[in-house]
Amino acid sequence: MEGLAEALGKKIRKIRKEKGFTQDNVALGSRIDRSYMGRIERGEVNITVEKLYEIAEVLGCEPASLLPAKDTW
Amino acid sequence: MEGLAEALGKKIRKIRKEKGFTQDNVALGSRIDRSYMGRIERGEVNITVEKLYEIAEVLGCEPASLLPAKDTW
Repeated sequence: MEGLAEALGKKIRKIRKEKGFTQDNVALGSRIDRSYMGRIERGEVNITVEKLYEIAEVLGCEPASLLPAKDTW
Repeated sequence: MEGLAEALGKKIRKIRKEKGFTQDNVALGSRIDRSYMGRIERGEVNITVEKLYEIAEVLGCEPASLLPAKDTW
């Protein structure tokens, strides 16, 4: 699944910016460390489905909307 | 996120059965241990997004289709 974490991180970053959140906002809201949030967006870590839901909740979007389509990575 | 892992496990089990796969088929195809597959379906573990994609690939469905809707748990 090479590239999945990166594609997911990019998608989270894109939607975060569209909705006007900072990394700090999302990190705080999803109870994760600010630097870990940066690592998620850079695709350096493989988050759990639970963390996906928590980030989606803070961003006010559906968790499925954060998932990159299979042909985009 | 109480109940998410259980709801996700139920959904994976439901779709697995609908598509006529055994736990062994899915475990083998997604390179996980058979007993771990059972724990996933019972909601005892919190899988990564990568594992969600691997399971979806074996089941031949979209990863998003395995995600339980927020009001179902």
